[in-house]
Amino acid sequence: MIMQETISAQGDTAPDTADADDLIATLAANARAAQRVLAGKSDADKAAALRKAAQALRDHAKAILSANAQDVTKGEDRGLTSAMLDRLRLDEARLAGIADAVDQVAALPDPVGETIASSERPNGLQLSRVRVPIGVIGIIYESRPNVTADAAALCVRAGNAVILRGGSEAVNSNRAILAALAEGLAAGGIPAHAVQLVPTQDRAAVGALLRAADGVDMIVPRGGKSLVARVQAEARVPVLAHLDGICHTYVHCAADQAMAEAVAVNAKMRRTGICGAMETLLIDAAYPHASDLVGKLIDAGCAVRGDGRACALDTRITPANAGDWDTEYLEAVLSVAVVDGLDAALAHITAHSSGHTDAIVTSDAETAEQFLNAVDSAIVMANASSQFADGGEFGLGAEIGIATGRLHARGPVALEGLTTYKWQVRGTGQTRP
Amino acid sequence: MIMQETISAQGDTAPDTADADDLIATLAANARAAQRVLAGKSDADKAAALRKAAQALRDHAKAILSANAQDVTKGEDRGLTSAMLDRLRLDEARLAGIADAVDQVAALPDPVGETIASSERPNGLQLSRVRVPIGVIGIIYESRPNVTADAAALCVRAGNAVILRGGSEAVNSNRAILAALAEGLAAGGIPAHAVQLVPTQDRAAVGALLRAADGVDMIVPRGGKSLVARVQAEARVPVLAHLDGICHTYVHCAADQAMAEAVAVNAKMRRTGICGAMETLLIDAAYPHASDLVGKLIDAGCAVRGDGRACALDTRITPANAGDWDTEYLEAVLSVAVVDGLDAALAHITAHSSGHTDAIVTSDAETAEQFLNAVDSAIVMANASSQFADGGEFGLGAEIGIATGRLHARGPVALEGLTTYKWQVRGTGQTRP
Repeated sequence: MIMQETISAQGDTAPDTADADDLIATLAANARAAQRVLAGKSDADKAAALRKAAQALRDHAKAILSANAQDVTKGEDRGLTSAMLDRLRLDEARLAGIADAVDQVAALPDPVGETIASSERPNGLQLSRVRVPIGVIGIIYESRPNVTADAAALCVRAGNAVILRGGSEAVNSNRAILAALAEGLAAGGIPAHAVQLVPTQDRAAVGALLRAADGVDMIVPRGGKSLVARVQAEARVPVLAHLDGICHTYVHCAADQAMAEAVAVNAKMRRTGICGAMETLLIDAAYPHASDLVGKLIDAGCAVRGDGRACALDTRITPANAGDWDTEYLEAVLSVAVVDGLDAALAHITAHSSGHTDAIVTSDAETAEQFLNAVDSAIVMANASSQFADGGEFGLGAEIGIATGRLHARGPVALEGLTTYKWQVRGTGQTRP
Repeated sequence: MIMQETISAQGDTAPDTADADDLIATLAANARAAQRVLAGKSDADKAAALRKAAQALRDHAKAILSANAQDVTKGEDRGLTSAMLDRLRLDEARLAGIADAVDQVAALPDPVGETIASSERPNGLQLSRVRVPIGVIGIIYESRPNVTADAAALCVRAGNAVILRGGSEAVNSNRAILAALAEGLAAGGIPAHAVQLVPTQDRAAVGALLRAADGVDMIVPRGGKSLVARVQAEARVPVLAHLDGICHTYVHCAADQAMAEAVAVNAKMRRTGICGAMETLLIDAAYPHASDLVGKLIDAGCAVRGDGRACALDTRITPANAGDWDTEYLEAVLSVAVVDGLDAALAHITAHSSGHTDAIVTSDAETAEQFLNAVDSAIVMANASSQFADGGEFGLGAEIGIATGRLHARGPVALEGLTTYKWQVRGTGQTRP
């Protein structure tokens, strides 16, 4: 079993793979045993244990910040960008925020045990569907250490055990956070193995986790394109995937000018690096203030790439190439197309949307409803910024990710998405004829 | 592109694979286009088109029965067992039943458009989650030709296009049924490509369907262990899997004797070949009528394999080996273990259940509730035969299968399991601070 960090540059050799499978099988068996205990805990027990975990993060602040400082130093040596270092770095305020977030998850209503539906059959059988935990969840994520605490807290709140595999940049931070969480949970009567961190950064361990269909019930990948591509190629475990956010905003001919400009600038520029950021603006050919709209975006610091008609709106627009319509920029770059009415907008979105979030701005209620019904994305919006695509903004309290697949859960995934259901049947001795 | 039936005995060669990928890509593109039209159809339109499809099955009865006779003749030549031939064979009454089942699906309530949940945020955003079709569904199944009509009708009722890949034994029957269905749907304004049959029996086409993650949204495999194993090994498309049904019945010490005997005999012997049939009987060591219970099963024609204590109950019981506890017999064979109380029964079920259906018989309400809460299978029952594990018996009208996975849908899967949801957000120009 690999218990030491061994970074393999490329290509998992056969012995690595077998060792990694053994390692993950051990973690999964530990997780399964812990989950069975966790499944018997009450709402109050789980909430109390999570509050103890939050307090343990505060109690161990010094150790966590010291571990994080090691990661930051190592990251500086490895030449991480300042943006990456900023995402990695913790300070007392950020750590307090992480602990508070765990308390907030503790305060969320427990979804487990909820009766989703019930019915009685003519033969007297009483049926009900009751929400239960999924079981053992694997989460593969990249550099932000706060994910360690957020994801663990959400999984445990919904009665699941979690196996976390964080990025190598944050390995010391993640270990220190995980140790504090496990200590707090154990003090609250929840087995420490309910939250485990894969103890190696070997890439073979990721492959083993993706293959562990017998021991792991769901994988949530949170990371960039290379991680997502690997998960898609290798996973044998069901995946709750978060792919690209190629989000569109369509400014209809009947859009209010001030609203269109405010929504478009916010959707693109509030934070350009999040998956809900607008990447393509579709302007109706009959919208009378198109030049003003692109001007506002350019004035806000956005580089605009346009189709032929869009380029005619402002001399600062450069021509888009075919790839632009399928690009998630995640920076202050926007592609703009002029479209002839709702149907053309829908056709563009059908062809190029990644199915994350697409929005319309219009004062015409009927057109808004047509758009909301016709666009088949996880989130469709009328007259709002696509940057609202977020579990917190949706009132879910927190999110484990935004799912762009079609099964199980779509859009922001929070506690409910970390549960499944079972059928309970209560009879009085019925036999089937 | 392979448009002719070419049965490859073993091993997909590279050219076959490329051809099969092209074939499936074409079918998937056709399906996607048809599904977009279907998604715009009303409840009434879909119901009317399905009634036309049912009528087309009746109108083309002669052609369908003639095609089926070809399959039966071929099956006899190939030496299919009489049970397999019986499952394959259609007559006027069976075909009428298939058409009536399509009418029954037409009469089911349309799940699409249902608002699952809604809320208003403090900033005035109105959120709702609305049920929508999944999209394009692939179904891989074995010999019964009724599945062609049942599965197509269910998919279309919920607004999905379907790509069907039936067994080679029923290829002519399936083609004739599919042609009638497509004609009826088209007469009702639904594109014929909403229901398609993979036009080749080449095994490479199954592989291509399992890999078609860009074009197919979900795969439902309905078949034996070899199909399930292939799907688990190869699928890149999300799978709604139906694995083994190793179903347990636990007769508690406080079980009513007559009820225990009636439920156990029904659970095992009503039909031994269905996935909800009991495969293991757990008898509480304190249940006073254990010999009578196993005697009733043996008298009903069941071969019983027991653990040490079970063998002492009746001289006709043979010793079970370790593999028996993990075997889905699907015939008149039963494994029986004597267990010491609820906890021992739960431990046995945890170790050996396939997560399909497990039941308890007891007159003690508290024990029944403990069992219903503790057993983590798709269906848990108290005082009822596990043979009730069926979409029709659950009031779902019909079922596409019984899911034993943990995500998306569990237990009998019907129209609701063939849908997903999207978030609709209605604003008045909100931007995110």
